[in-house]
Amino acid sequence: MRDKRQIKVCLTPALFPLYADRKSIVVVVDVLRATSAMCTAFHYGMNKIIPVSTVEEALEYRDVESHILAAERNGKQVRGFDFGNSPLQYQDHDVKDKTLVMTTTNGTKAINIAKRDHQVVIGSFLNIDALSDWLAKQNKDIVVLCAGWKDDFCFEDALFAGALTEKLLKTKLFESNSDSANGSRMIYIRAKEDMYRFLGISQHRRRLEHLNIEKDVKYCLQENITSVIPVLKEDELVLAE
Amino acid sequence: MRDKRQIKVCLTPALFPLYADRKSIVVVVDVLRATSAMCTAFHYGMNKIIPVSTVEEALEYRDVESHILAAERNGKQVRGFDFGNSPLQYQDHDVKDKTLVMTTTNGTKAINIAKRDHQVVIGSFLNIDALSDWLAKQNKDIVVLCAGWKDDFCFEDALFAGALTEKLLKTKLFESNSDSANGSRMIYIRAKEDMYRFLGISQHRRRLEHLNIEKDVKYCLQENITSVIPVLKEDELVLAE
Repeated sequence: MRDKRQIKVCLTPALFPLYADRKSIVVVVDVLRATSAMCTAFHYGMNKIIPVSTVEEALEYRDVESHILAAERNGKQVRGFDFGNSPLQYQDHDVKDKTLVMTTTNGTKAINIAKRDHQVVIGSFLNIDALSDWLAKQNKDIVVLCAGWKDDFCFEDALFAGALTEKLLKTKLFESNSDSANGSRMIYIRAKEDMYRFLGISQHRRRLEHLNIEKDVKYCLQENITSVIPVLKEDELVLAE
Repeated sequence: MRDKRQIKVCLTPALFPLYADRKSIVVVVDVLRATSAMCTAFHYGMNKIIPVSTVEEALEYRDVESHILAAERNGKQVRGFDFGNSPLQYQDHDVKDKTLVMTTTNGTKAINIAKRDHQVVIGSFLNIDALSDWLAKQNKDIVVLCAGWKDDFCFEDALFAGALTEKLLKTKLFESNSDSANGSRMIYIRAKEDMYRFLGISQHRRRLEHLNIEKDVKYCLQENITSVIPVLKEDELVLAE
C-alpha cells in the first residue's frame, strides 16, 4: 500500500516559499471574495478567467469584445470597471461564453505566486465537495494557499483550509503532518455550526462593514452550490476536463 | 473611559514587519523550549540571560567566569556547550546569580527581531498568569510574537498565544480585532483540556521524537509554576522590577 498523501496549509502568501515543492497541487483560496466570485462566474457559464496582478494589465483588455473586466482594491470595485469581486454580480448579468479579466487585492496575487511551479486549482466553500472529490483523484500532495489579507493571516481562508483538510482526511487517502493544517482544522471544527457568527469578529467583516457586503458574506459561506473545478492552464482559468 | 487595548498575534517572525508599530509590548514565545527554559533559569536564580543570534557570538563569552553557555540547533544541544534548550537542565545545576548566554534555532532570533523598536517580555505557560497580570498593568497594546519553526507557523506557540489572549480578554481591559489572535484562541479553547494530546500530532513532536524530549514537553505545558517576568534591558534579559 502506498503512503498516504500529505495536506499542508500555507496561511499567507508571504510563507509560500516554505511550501513550494514543485510537485504539490496548490489550492488557492480567497473566500471573501475572489475565489468565490470565480466559482460563481464559471457556474453561470463564463468560458474562462484571466487573472492579472495589476489594474493596468486588466485595462489592456479594455477593447476586446466578449471580455468582461473586473477589478477590486481594498474591498471596492475599481472605478471604470464592469465588475468588482462580488460573486452576486455574476448571477445578475449574462456572462455565458465570455472571458473575465480579473484583478483583486489578494486572490489573483496568490494565483500568480503559485502558478510558477505548481498546478493551480481554485477553491471556495461554494465548490468544496466537488473540489475534494477531484483532488482525491489527482494522486498528488496538496498545499492549500490562503490568499489572506495583504500577506497576513485571515480567518475566513483558514476556516476554508480547515474544512477542506477535514474532508480530505475523511477520504483516508490523505494525512496531515502540518501544524497549520491541523490548527486550521481545529478552527473549522469549532466554528462550523455557525460560520457566519464566528466570521462576525473577523477583521474582514470589520474592514468592509461600511461596504454593505453582508449578502456577499452569507452567499460565500454556502457549501456546494456548484460543482465547477476552475484550474489554471497557460495563465488562464478554465474548467477542469 | 479609555478605549480597550488591543491584543494581536504574529504567527511567525516572517510576518513581524506587519505588526511592528514601535509602541506595543512584544511577548516573545517559544514554548518548546527556549522561552520555557528562560523562565525556568530565572526561577532557579539565574541573574541574567544574554540572547545571541549565532553560535559564534555565544562562543565569544567562553572564557568569562560565572557565564553559562547554552546553544541549540534543530532541537539538539550544540557540541561543546554546557546547555541546550531543555528547561530541566536548570533545575539540576547551580545557576544562582550566574549569567546565561543563549542561542536557539527560533527563540533568540525572535527576540532579536522584536527588540529593535519594542519593549520585549518573555512568555511561556510556566509564567502565564504572572505575565498576564503584569501586562494588564503596563497600559500598552500587546503583540504576541510566536517564534514558530524556521519562519513557519507552529502549533504550540499559537496555543500559548491563544491562552494568553483568553486570559487578557477576561481582564476586560483588552479587546482583539486580530484574526490571528481570535484563531489562536479558538485553537486553545479546543485543546486546553488535553494540550499534551493535541500536541501529539504537532510537527515539533514528530521532528524531535527521536530526541526523547517527552519529559520536556510535559514540563513546558504546566501553567504557573513560576511568577518570573523576564524583560529585555539593553540587550540582556533581567527580571522586571
